[in-house]
Amino acid sequence: MQFTTFTIQNVSENSSGLRSTQQVLRCLYSRRAVPSINHIYSTKPSLPPNSLAWAYNISRSCSTYSSGQSSFSLRSHTCGELCSSHVDEEVTLCGWIQYLRQDLFVILRDFSGLVQILIPQDESKSELKNAFLGLTVESVIMVKGRVRCRPEGQENKKMSTGEIEVCAESMEVLNTCRKLPFEIKEFVKKSEALRMQYRYLDLRSPRMQYNLRLRSQMVMKMREYLCNLHRFVDVETPTLFKRTPGGAKEFVVPSGDPGKFYSLPQSPQQFKQLLMVAGIDRYFQLARCYRDEGSKPDRQPEFTQVDIEISFVDQAGVMSLIEGLVHYSWPEDKGQINVPFPSMTYEEAIRDYGVDKPDTRFGMKLVDVTTAFQESQIEFIKDALLKPSGCIQAICVPEGTKYLKGKDLEFLKQAAKTQYGQRPLLGKLRLQCVELLESYGVPVRDPSVFHFLWVVDFPLFLPKEDNPEMLEAAHHPFTAPVPEDAHLLYTQPRKVRGQHYDLVLNGCEVGGGSIRIHNASQQLYVLDTILKEDPSLLSHLLEALDSGAPPHGGIALGLDRLVSIIVGAPSIRDIIAFPKSFRGHDLMSRAPDFVSEEDLKPYHISVVWPSADIEGQQDNSV
Amino acid sequence: MQFTTFTIQNVSENSSGLRSTQQVLRCLYSRRAVPSINHIYSTKPSLPPNSLAWAYNISRSCSTYSSGQSSFSLRSHTCGELCSSHVDEEVTLCGWIQYLRQDLFVILRDFSGLVQILIPQDESKSELKNAFLGLTVESVIMVKGRVRCRPEGQENKKMSTGEIEVCAESMEVLNTCRKLPFEIKEFVKKSEALRMQYRYLDLRSPRMQYNLRLRSQMVMKMREYLCNLHRFVDVETPTLFKRTPGGAKEFVVPSGDPGKFYSLPQSPQQFKQLLMVAGIDRYFQLARCYRDEGSKPDRQPEFTQVDIEISFVDQAGVMSLIEGLVHYSWPEDKGQINVPFPSMTYEEAIRDYGVDKPDTRFGMKLVDVTTAFQESQIEFIKDALLKPSGCIQAICVPEGTKYLKGKDLEFLKQAAKTQYGQRPLLGKLRLQCVELLESYGVPVRDPSVFHFLWVVDFPLFLPKEDNPEMLEAAHHPFTAPVPEDAHLLYTQPRKVRGQHYDLVLNGCEVGGGSIRIHNASQQLYVLDTILKEDPSLLSHLLEALDSGAPPHGGIALGLDRLVSIIVGAPSIRDIIAFPKSFRGHDLMSRAPDFVSEEDLKPYHISVVWPSADIEGQQDNSV
Repeated sequence: MQFTTFTIQNVSENSSGLRSTQQVLRCLYSRRAVPSINHIYSTKPSLPPNSLAWAYNISRSCSTYSSGQSSFSLRSHTCGELCSSHVDEEVTLCGWIQYLRQDLFVILRDFSGLVQILIPQDESKSELKNAFLGLTVESVIMVKGRVRCRPEGQENKKMSTGEIEVCAESMEVLNTCRKLPFEIKEFVKKSEALRMQYRYLDLRSPRMQYNLRLRSQMVMKMREYLCNLHRFVDVETPTLFKRTPGGAKEFVVPSGDPGKFYSLPQSPQQFKQLLMVAGIDRYFQLARCYRDEGSKPDRQPEFTQVDIEISFVDQAGVMSLIEGLVHYSWPEDKGQINVPFPSMTYEEAIRDYGVDKPDTRFGMKLVDVTTAFQESQIEFIKDALLKPSGCIQAICVPEGTKYLKGKDLEFLKQAAKTQYGQRPLLGKLRLQCVELLESYGVPVRDPSVFHFLWVVDFPLFLPKEDNPEMLEAAHHPFTAPVPEDAHLLYTQPRKVRGQHYDLVLNGCEVGGGSIRIHNASQQLYVLDTILKEDPSLLSHLLEALDSGAPPHGGIALGLDRLVSIIVGAPSIRDIIAFPKSFRGHDLMSRAPDFVSEEDLKPYHISVVWPSADIEGQQDNSV
Repeated sequence: MQFTTFTIQNVSENSSGLRSTQQVLRCLYSRRAVPSINHIYSTKPSLPPNSLAWAYNISRSCSTYSSGQSSFSLRSHTCGELCSSHVDEEVTLCGWIQYLRQDLFVILRDFSGLVQILIPQDESKSELKNAFLGLTVESVIMVKGRVRCRPEGQENKKMSTGEIEVCAESMEVLNTCRKLPFEIKEFVKKSEALRMQYRYLDLRSPRMQYNLRLRSQMVMKMREYLCNLHRFVDVETPTLFKRTPGGAKEFVVPSGDPGKFYSLPQSPQQFKQLLMVAGIDRYFQLARCYRDEGSKPDRQPEFTQVDIEISFVDQAGVMSLIEGLVHYSWPEDKGQINVPFPSMTYEEAIRDYGVDKPDTRFGMKLVDVTTAFQESQIEFIKDALLKPSGCIQAICVPEGTKYLKGKDLEFLKQAAKTQYGQRPLLGKLRLQCVELLESYGVPVRDPSVFHFLWVVDFPLFLPKEDNPEMLEAAHHPFTAPVPEDAHLLYTQPRKVRGQHYDLVLNGCEVGGGSIRIHNASQQLYVLDTILKEDPSLLSHLLEALDSGAPPHGGIALGLDRLVSIIVGAPSIRDIIAFPKSFRGHDLMSRAPDFVSEEDLKPYHISVVWPSADIEGQQDNSV
């Protein structure tokens, strides 16, 4: 760091004693003429008598610091950035002991990588040598030394700093490390529970460092795109909100008013629409959202969405905006992606892939073979064809006859039987065939390839599962109908398509949005007449639509899911710094935890203990 | 918008009928060759028969859109950006009717400003004229027209678009507006309750638009500084966490485990330190924090802090980092600020200003006049001087004799009496003198001037208010001692100064931070021996410090407070989109609200109703 170096070079050797030096330093430091008081303490026990005046001059001449990954730091460089261009430079490094080798080398690690430190071997430096040899793995040190080329033949081409090493001249132990529950090495396999309990150690792995840094960089690029290029306004919306009618998955937060609760919202949907009514014009937020789904696999009780809303826009506008966003923020090391992304209607997706989020990295589309079986006398085929819109479909599995064995076919047959009549059955069978093929080593889905796809023209309403006479919103009740279908709202609502769009990546839904209803009477008709919901619960939104609401629409991207697919993580827990376990527990701090009745009093609630043994309810499983 | 214009220019007039045009458009649109289907619908009812092929070509040649505040939009320009350089251009504007004037003009508003639309007066356009005249205020329209210079002498120099006007050629009503509870004009005074209930209207005011946009821009600049210039990593930390011991101000969130609760944390303090142990090296987050303070004035139950932590740093490093941050993100229209900011020790602040967050925009320092009164025979002065560290201090109020009247002096005397013996008394009297002077029109505190100040060298511990024999942490138990004082921890802990720094702006604390303890045994000693707290509650943190924790420190800036001072807002509610009232209520959606016992069942809690009449508890005051 430019400033530290400069300061130290100016500390002359004539002395006025340690105590007065400290006084001078405190004085300089309270005026912040020196950036690094401890540093100077440890290296230069004395300062010139006129250092105060000198420091004033420095503080005037060096009022800005250099930027970069070592600014404001005790180190001059990071371990991983050193290369042959640094040869002969004096450097100060800070980091963790990865390991000691042959009593000769220390491998030092920081977030940027590893570097080899040469321990001095001559007798005059035996104290320094012994200090190095006494170090435990993962202890934290500061090393000063000079960079040199490694002797010929000793370069390590697998190491990015493998051409050089640092000859240690001094070393300070900043912290010692006790024996750890596991080693910080990529190849060391740890149980999920251990990783979660010692998350601060797990995060030291290069993989987790990469994941969190990539996430941060992608988010920053997204912000640049939205805020700087397209003038979106980053607006924070409340997370202590009113409970949504029927919001069974919303956490409640007791307030000081007896019987009254806030709710942690599943998304800022109402707020983003209200911001459009407020004339904000273009809004975005990296929004923390909450959903209480118990122990669904690979879900988190809190998650983050890239939340976007824009006024005076239509469906194609939002889709282009998002393509630009993904393209702009795409990590360089993941190859190019092409925009625009292909689109597919909901009808096409169901017809060809049996699912509304098809993985288009491979074919194996569903083929309708009904006509070929029209005259079939096979009993279950005859039965199927007699049903309303009954049909026979086939999937052609390439090399299936070569790889799929009797038990595989039996497995598929059983899957088909148990899920017979459920809509996504054929889509599932297609994926199960692929999984079987891949288990035999046939590569079908390339993990390094990214197939984005828009799915559009969803139905606006679906029959309720428990009462098919009634309708429910396919996505949410604020989605506007496709303009040509709007008149059908009043006659055949089941036929209305919505201006909804889902973004699918490699068969996973990574985003969804819609053009919203901006007309109060249309919104009231949908809530009241079609969905039979109590419109008074949304009276503030209906009133807002009646107050000069612009046409608007938006989208929310699931950031955790998106990043996890990009980095190829098996779970979204691998791209979240401190995730909860399957059961919603923090295994490090042991949250949630018991709270005294005394602490609950201000909130006017008490615990209703189940009649069963309470001990039996406790569960520390992941 | 470049693309829209291009598309429309290419739509030739030969027709193939509306129905087939719609089909073609749907097709184009599902492939997103056209950005704006509704737009084309409304303006061009026909497309050439070969439009599909034509559209493919366009989609290839225009795969990127232009950037700016009208990208992806139905409009071509914003209202406020038009000026004489746009004269003769055809523009499409979308916005709200501010007002109609003389049946001749419509003043159209969007977030960027106002523009005058000329309503055509000739007979052939009477339909368009009537459509304009039928508009209600705050209705939303789209206008196409041509920009022209206003006739000589009719320019409006008070209006940024006052040199031009737009001659309307067509207009579409996008939404009509009902009668509103108040007008959207700066000078219309509204009650706070009305502003909160109709927040989506209140936010349409130029002042609120300015505040939210300035906040967004400042935050974006802060991110650029931290992320791009200094390589900080933006890491999200959980808000569903474990309750802090004694965390009386933490909201609780019941979980599905009987009797177990999450807590909404007051800051990510533990997580940011754990991220340093994890080797993240430099962390930042715009962190949502929660604090249940009932009805303290101008506090919010949720607020945002700029949360920063950095490894291998010292106090001066963090202070320089923050100076750079504030300097970099400082709004251009608020004048220059100078860095580095001045520093003052806690002792100096108390001595000279009687408070630890002095407003240094004006003098009126406290003057110790004890020696002058040493021989005084006045009874209360004699009494005061007999007390331990008793002293007599004075404030010189400039022009005080001219302005301060008998009742003012009586008011000050009463204030002094009632708060006698409380530490911040003299600091308060100083401010009260200023308020009195300002009430007589003497300008003392210039609101357009920004005085930043660091306050350093705080005591690490303070005597507990209710039991002065015991100590409590002055800030929090993780603050490291000043290096020269560290040995006093074990002998005279009351004399230890902490490596804590507060950032003060115009007499308000806008940030605070510290270098943290990174040594497990020192941390244990502070918790256990000095503070008498149960260290097992922080066992995960102590374990982490023992696992190779680097030296680290950080800071948190109160974003809401900082922005509110910069824009000169009387309340932080003016820089938050959807704030809660004094009593923590959302007056728009009426949160918090009652939740059915049925909905509470999954969380194993029930409401404990106070014995008093429940109706009496309800309160809709702000």
